[in-house]
Amino acid sequence: MKKPSRPEIPRKAVYRLSIYLRCLLRLKDNGLPTIASEALARAAGVKPTQLRKDLAYFGTFGTRGLGYDVEQLGAMIADVLGTNRLQPVILVGVGNLGAALLAYQGFGPEGFEVVAAFDAEPAKAKTRTPFPRILPMVDMARIIRERRVRMAILTVPVTSAQEVVNQLVEAGIVGVLNFAPIGLQVPEDVTVNGVNLAIELENLSYFIQD
Amino acid sequence: MKKPSRPEIPRKAVYRLSIYLRCLLRLKDNGLPTIASEALARAAGVKPTQLRKDLAYFGTFGTRGLGYDVEQLGAMIADVLGTNRLQPVILVGVGNLGAALLAYQGFGPEGFEVVAAFDAEPAKAKTRTPFPRILPMVDMARIIRERRVRMAILTVPVTSAQEVVNQLVEAGIVGVLNFAPIGLQVPEDVTVNGVNLAIELENLSYFIQD
Repeated sequence: MKKPSRPEIPRKAVYRLSIYLRCLLRLKDNGLPTIASEALARAAGVKPTQLRKDLAYFGTFGTRGLGYDVEQLGAMIADVLGTNRLQPVILVGVGNLGAALLAYQGFGPEGFEVVAAFDAEPAKAKTRTPFPRILPMVDMARIIRERRVRMAILTVPVTSAQEVVNQLVEAGIVGVLNFAPIGLQVPEDVTVNGVNLAIELENLSYFIQD
Repeated sequence: MKKPSRPEIPRKAVYRLSIYLRCLLRLKDNGLPTIASEALARAAGVKPTQLRKDLAYFGTFGTRGLGYDVEQLGAMIADVLGTNRLQPVILVGVGNLGAALLAYQGFGPEGFEVVAAFDAEPAKAKTRTPFPRILPMVDMARIIRERRVRMAILTVPVTSAQEVVNQLVEAGIVGVLNFAPIGLQVPEDVTVNGVNLAIELENLSYFIQD
């Protein structure tokens, strides 16, 4: 299969590709060889027109009357997303949240390997987690280069988030999963996805009031 | 101060209120009594017109030439968000991610108290975390009623997420922070916010490719 080109597609469409991929993996586990686009759309919670439009960014898929080949479409999406190989990731900031994420076993099965974690106070950080590779900040740029790391999980305090992200970008990081509740200034070719648990809870708090 | 009424405002505006509140708390810590709307907008990373529009949902604030009273505006937003009192939360599903979140110390300072955690296999779950209140699923509805819990953090496997959310809604939960990578069907008066770490990473993975 020819490697699909990577057109400029909306970020929400990329999120939907992740959902489609999960549905396809479940179908494959259940031994289904093909699926109609209507059924896949329903499983993913989108309209069939949306599904077809999202997949059309990458070429023509499916056979009229037969639907999609579950394995082939899954492999194509994994290839587009770049998750068909183990992706090295570093984590910066081993406070409570950083330590909690290092304890989380869910990244590996999804194709991400945390190759090292960094903290301004490695000795203190080591008391929070059994994770074996906690290094001082001065080693960060070297490890990023040596391990060809392109993604970082950022769990430092708000006050140092921008400074750390500058160092990360300088060292070659181009994707940041940011848990610090602050907007980060980065060059155009760097992508930052923000996750803020407290803000998500606070947002819910608004909607659950009487 | 009169309690502001709660008009129907867009969810994104509620997220921005959380950002404004964090900026105001930092200003308060730094001893600033007032702030111009332009400066607050800049700190929050929004346009001044956006800030004024968001606040206008709740009444008239600020004095021409003086700006906003930092403490008063902060108190108003905390009141609107419902985070000016400790909010009881339960966590359901003490697998790796659930255990990691129970270890996270960041909820308390933000106004959320995890009053209990539930798992289908409490004995096994207890090996993953020192959190003291891990209970079997049969106790869930009773605890929700007794502690008047309205919010739940959902960290169960995809395969049981919908069934568990049905039980939660039946027992009185009206806000769910969902970590299971699946869309949940809930009644209209129930709010679900989704967080999916693997999908966020996978999304970054797309954007960091050469």
